[in-house]
Amino acid sequence: MQKTRLETERIRAARRMIDPVFLDTPLYRCEALEPELGCAVSIKLETANPVRSFKGRGTEVVASLLAGGDSRAVVCASAGNLGQALAWSGRGRGLDVTVVASRFATAAKLDRIRALGAELELVDGDHEMARERAAAIARYEGIRLVEDSLDIETCEGAATIGLELVDSAASFDTVLIALGGGALATGVGHVVKDFAPDVEVVCVQPLGAPALTLSWRQRRVVTTDATDTIADGVAGRFPIPAVLDDLLLVADDAVLVREESIIAGMRMLFDHAGLVVEPSAALGIAAILEDRDRFAGRHVVTVLCGSNVDVDAYRRWIGPPAARPY
Amino acid sequence: MQKTRLETERIRAARRMIDPVFLDTPLYRCEALEPELGCAVSIKLETANPVRSFKGRGTEVVASLLAGGDSRAVVCASAGNLGQALAWSGRGRGLDVTVVASRFATAAKLDRIRALGAELELVDGDHEMARERAAAIARYEGIRLVEDSLDIETCEGAATIGLELVDSAASFDTVLIALGGGALATGVGHVVKDFAPDVEVVCVQPLGAPALTLSWRQRRVVTTDATDTIADGVAGRFPIPAVLDDLLLVADDAVLVREESIIAGMRMLFDHAGLVVEPSAALGIAAILEDRDRFAGRHVVTVLCGSNVDVDAYRRWIGPPAARPY
Repeated sequence: MQKTRLETERIRAARRMIDPVFLDTPLYRCEALEPELGCAVSIKLETANPVRSFKGRGTEVVASLLAGGDSRAVVCASAGNLGQALAWSGRGRGLDVTVVASRFATAAKLDRIRALGAELELVDGDHEMARERAAAIARYEGIRLVEDSLDIETCEGAATIGLELVDSAASFDTVLIALGGGALATGVGHVVKDFAPDVEVVCVQPLGAPALTLSWRQRRVVTTDATDTIADGVAGRFPIPAVLDDLLLVADDAVLVREESIIAGMRMLFDHAGLVVEPSAALGIAAILEDRDRFAGRHVVTVLCGSNVDVDAYRRWIGPPAARPY
Repeated sequence: MQKTRLETERIRAARRMIDPVFLDTPLYRCEALEPELGCAVSIKLETANPVRSFKGRGTEVVASLLAGGDSRAVVCASAGNLGQALAWSGRGRGLDVTVVASRFATAAKLDRIRALGAELELVDGDHEMARERAAAIARYEGIRLVEDSLDIETCEGAATIGLELVDSAASFDTVLIALGGGALATGVGHVVKDFAPDVEVVCVQPLGAPALTLSWRQRRVVTTDATDTIADGVAGRFPIPAVLDDLLLVADDAVLVREESIIAGMRMLFDHAGLVVEPSAALGIAAILEDRDRFAGRHVVTVLCGSNVDVDAYRRWIGPPAARPY
């Protein structure tokens, strides 16, 4: 394969910087999902850690490197998960962490960012406005800006999931990866293509936030005017050119799914697997639901990348109890 | 400590017989639970595996040993989790597995036992009747009976959780363990008392199924006439004398909790940790809820031992969405 910005040796080195609480996450066949999905389904579970998403892998690398340097202040924009993870990683290393988020971000995520001791600044706009504001803070204050998916450490951290997938005894036909900024997809995709090039890497994005998928399809950056999806963790509008370049090298396909499929995916993971996931983490299951024929008989692994949900919204997504007596 | 039936070297050997999918499960601080509980809380998560409970650790040992012998048939009584686990472990090794269960057992558990290819026989009574029937089948057919908590392999399998707790970097003041037949409590308790004797081992049982707790308190086997609890996984009436002897050596306390505390515990794990657990797995949180003063300021670890719930009952336990608009 042509060279992405990632290097496998650096990913192995990144792994050594990450607190073990984020590593070697559960990976298992989930047969109870399979009758409805028509394929073999394995789950890589990134929710059972102190920040309930995979983002700790990347922020551990960022914070480890920062803690060794002179500057101990860092700022990022976040839809909620990166901010929580950076707050956690920074707290353990005595860093000053500022997180900029949209005031429309999931309240539970914002609460956790505050609880973890980070400075939280809200902007009256969407995630792209938060990105602008974070960049401005970094410039004015001369502190480190962590840009998700652009900063190579965030990709390397995510890529350690790929190492765990290819090191497992199971052989997969397809890896389904939520596509947001692109760190998860390019990170995992790089490792999969390096070690198991025949395994298909399929990225999944909501129809309501399709910018990076459209960019991948047209092989040039395509921006959108707005996003409209419950999958708050992947709702960007301005793809990063360098990330798109990498994605073009590692992704075999990028698909868009409907909101109702995301909800059906969350509900299925709850009903048949006993797993709470946030909408972004249900994108892989949603992709199977929308195209069972494509995946029929294959062994698919999907990364369940986070579980930070608004619990009341989640209760509505999974629906009420069936109306039958006990 | 006086000698239990367990030996640490055998537990280490047991670990080598267990499929890695059941080992090295997530162990992490769950700070989002802590404001309401008033103590530091870590979670040992035994639900993210193919059978959604810790029971696979024990059945892997049982099935590994059986697969090396002449007899390839095995029977057990189960409230649902042991049966699933034995079905999974037996299927992978070509064993004939029969599971006897109460027809009142959680339907989702029974469905999974069948789906995993085991023969399922239902009895028109409670778990103790299933135990009698399983023993009768073993006698008539001359096949291996797996008796949960009595058979040392089931305790050794559970005890590998204890190894993972004492091998972790964290130092705990208290381990809260669901008490059913006793394999989990005596297994984990043995290891904790062997390596970290100052750590308090507290067993938790529902008020509606108190037989082993009453036995521990009176230092003799106490049986009960009936059980009345949603915590189906721990609802026994006839404690096993040898297991009680071990429990007397390793448990510092055994407490009973109310049904509403179990439900509150499940709800709290859902709301603040994004974790689905079955009632038995919420016993530890329930114990903290009922006696916050006792645990105040301590670092408590609780084993979340299973997540096989009836999803409609679970939806009712966690309650409807809050009535506020979005």
